[in-house]
Amino acid sequence: MSEKKSIYKPKPVSGFPEWLPEVRMVEQRWLDHIRETFERYGFCSIETPSVEELDVIKAKGGDDGADVDKEVYVLERLHKEDGDKDARLALHFDQTVPLARYTAQHFNDLVFPFKRYQMQRVWRGERPQAGRFREFTQCDIDVINIDSLPLHFDAEMPAIIWEVLSSLPGMEKEKIQIRVSNRKILMGLLHEIDADPDEVMRAIDKIEKVGKEATYSILENELYLSGVEIDSVFSLIENKYTPKDIFKLSENNSSSNFLMNEGMKELINVMQSLSHLPEGAVVADLSIVRGLDYYTGTVYETVFLDDPSYGSICSGGRYDDLASSYINKALPGVGISIGFSRLFARILDKGALNTTRKSPADVLVVLPSEDRRTLAAQTAQILRSRGFKVELYHAPKKTGDQMKFASRKGIPYVWFPPFEDGLDHEVKNMDSGEQTKADPKDWSPDE
Amino acid sequence: MSEKKSIYKPKPVSGFPEWLPEVRMVEQRWLDHIRETFERYGFCSIETPSVEELDVIKAKGGDDGADVDKEVYVLERLHKEDGDKDARLALHFDQTVPLARYTAQHFNDLVFPFKRYQMQRVWRGERPQAGRFREFTQCDIDVINIDSLPLHFDAEMPAIIWEVLSSLPGMEKEKIQIRVSNRKILMGLLHEIDADPDEVMRAIDKIEKVGKEATYSILENELYLSGVEIDSVFSLIENKYTPKDIFKLSENNSSSNFLMNEGMKELINVMQSLSHLPEGAVVADLSIVRGLDYYTGTVYETVFLDDPSYGSICSGGRYDDLASSYINKALPGVGISIGFSRLFARILDKGALNTTRKSPADVLVVLPSEDRRTLAAQTAQILRSRGFKVELYHAPKKTGDQMKFASRKGIPYVWFPPFEDGLDHEVKNMDSGEQTKADPKDWSPDE
Repeated sequence: MSEKKSIYKPKPVSGFPEWLPEVRMVEQRWLDHIRETFERYGFCSIETPSVEELDVIKAKGGDDGADVDKEVYVLERLHKEDGDKDARLALHFDQTVPLARYTAQHFNDLVFPFKRYQMQRVWRGERPQAGRFREFTQCDIDVINIDSLPLHFDAEMPAIIWEVLSSLPGMEKEKIQIRVSNRKILMGLLHEIDADPDEVMRAIDKIEKVGKEATYSILENELYLSGVEIDSVFSLIENKYTPKDIFKLSENNSSSNFLMNEGMKELINVMQSLSHLPEGAVVADLSIVRGLDYYTGTVYETVFLDDPSYGSICSGGRYDDLASSYINKALPGVGISIGFSRLFARILDKGALNTTRKSPADVLVVLPSEDRRTLAAQTAQILRSRGFKVELYHAPKKTGDQMKFASRKGIPYVWFPPFEDGLDHEVKNMDSGEQTKADPKDWSPDE
Repeated sequence: MSEKKSIYKPKPVSGFPEWLPEVRMVEQRWLDHIRETFERYGFCSIETPSVEELDVIKAKGGDDGADVDKEVYVLERLHKEDGDKDARLALHFDQTVPLARYTAQHFNDLVFPFKRYQMQRVWRGERPQAGRFREFTQCDIDVINIDSLPLHFDAEMPAIIWEVLSSLPGMEKEKIQIRVSNRKILMGLLHEIDADPDEVMRAIDKIEKVGKEATYSILENELYLSGVEIDSVFSLIENKYTPKDIFKLSENNSSSNFLMNEGMKELINVMQSLSHLPEGAVVADLSIVRGLDYYTGTVYETVFLDDPSYGSICSGGRYDDLASSYINKALPGVGISIGFSRLFARILDKGALNTTRKSPADVLVVLPSEDRRTLAAQTAQILRSRGFKVELYHAPKKTGDQMKFASRKGIPYVWFPPFEDGLDHEVKNMDSGEQTKADPKDWSPDE
């Protein structure tokens, strides 16, 4: 470059992750695997715009109202023109508001039960801090129906999530556990003892973080539960059940409360449908309540058994009312959401991902000399037409340089077209070092 | 719902497209096909954050400076906190600024030539108007190298794009044409006749829209070219060449201008490398100049032959300087970009897409009765484990209702688990109506 110009040296923007090609390749494989599993269960894909009208977001609200105000990013044009009266647009901060708006808006064009998956970026305008993303990908599935929704779907969710998470490359499946509960059970008990369900559940939601003693103290001193009442709550939430012994739940907690009994029946039913999963994959854990009063029955969380304080990597539950902010219909649903970026970043941090490949190519075709270019290009085309991913080296450099290039990119095979007519093609397995004669028309990689 | 609450009826936001599931399925197939083709040529995927620092965007600038100011969406938090001193962030309006920033920032971690593809949404804060998207997907490939980049890659671009576009579902390949030129040729001529290359090229770039006469008049009356000079320009740009007769280019335009000769040599070389493409797929057309002085050699546009006024659906070219705004390195490259959303929306509008499937499921498994639920679920699982996409009907409704559901969703096969032990499974091809005995362990769909 002849002119000296001023340079603005770019730096990473806090909270907006970006990966090198070798990491992106694994991320893409994860996303493909998730999508494929969702589709294997018949979920259809939707994508919504990155923005919603601010009024749409405000009509439904977020997890709780205050967060929307603080966390939403609103779009502004750098220079507005006079008379610019567009509706205010905001980047979506979850996929629930968009799903609700989508379902209401396209209600007449959808077939119910509407089973959709959605894997998009969402944005939260949090202050920059380590480990917090301001842009991240969520992978959600939900089933929505009109008026009522069979419990069948509550059981399908953890089965799908187990299938997804347990076979992600780099994931140690014995360290993951899906925890299921049903809010009706604790809700019934709290009605029974006349305690404020929202406040008590909020306290219990934090028990893993703050510990049992601190929770006891909150229930006693701030929410004024008696010792007997606190004991009844604790004896309920401290028991865990596997699909095999879930039948004991109703034995341990006989009650005349309708809601509580209904919740127990539902939870038993859901857990028993999951008995085909490996031991430890799923437990009923009544301390799982989710912070949101949005959920009305089954709830899910997923934790790392060796690091439960990391929090849930995949959560969700059953709700009665998806979209009454937008349409006069009763639309119950059940859904679950993988916090994809957070999960991926953690497994990456642990060094558990194989990130040696900087290119998707299976084969690098060597260019032996400028006058063999046509042959090299044809060789690459034959291999491509057979479904292989092939890079053709661009210049007739020394063979050693071309092989070094393949090695740096992590390309597993190097192909040598003959440097003169009458000779054979050869291909080298870069891992084993073995080099053999081959025909591009019928070559296949080693097992 | 017991309470009457106020409803905010959502409506589409102009410029932010969103599809029903049956259209989204085809869109996804298009994206998969494009990605697969890019990878077959060894391009690696990158994704960048949706935002860049506003200073990064301003340092490089857009297609031309004014547009950045008008078209960029800046993020604002709804309620800023005191002392909030984050850098200003803006949604990217193309993938070139992000690529340049990425290449500079990760320079030491990349292997060059760096071949990357990028398929993301971009945003342009245009005023709402029919047919203009404010959020859309672009599919870009670029090859970047240090100091110099072989012409090989200039020829690879149209070959890849042809392979992508010609086999998209619903696309009539005989109606697409890739047009290639080399800016050095016209640039050389304009230097020779001492005309302002930027102004003349801008005029020529619009010739398809405004016509030859209007262009003549601009060249004569606004840019003061003589009749002889205008004739020399027109005689250059009016000729088209196929890969077979491209050799005539230098015969028709003998010149002593170095730049012009270099451009002709390059264009001939690129075109001759494309002689394996079907007739009409690619032509050399010297009226293609692209509006941007960013491009320095080969340039590409792609048009519908039956509707050239629709403009280019896929454009790009060779540039000398990707990232000198961010790093003190000479980084030449060549790239091409598919305006995905605009192209997809057009083919959709033409009614050329098969959008009958509202579910990815290959098979709907019927639930014969509540006490056959385990068998039905197991049947679904066996089919899934064999790679099929399977929806299990959720309730033991009448068989006719379950079949109607499959039909409304466009699911091609309905599976009937036996309604009592000892009987066979059966499966119905919903298209042909044929129903046959089948075993979930070895069934395969009809050809």
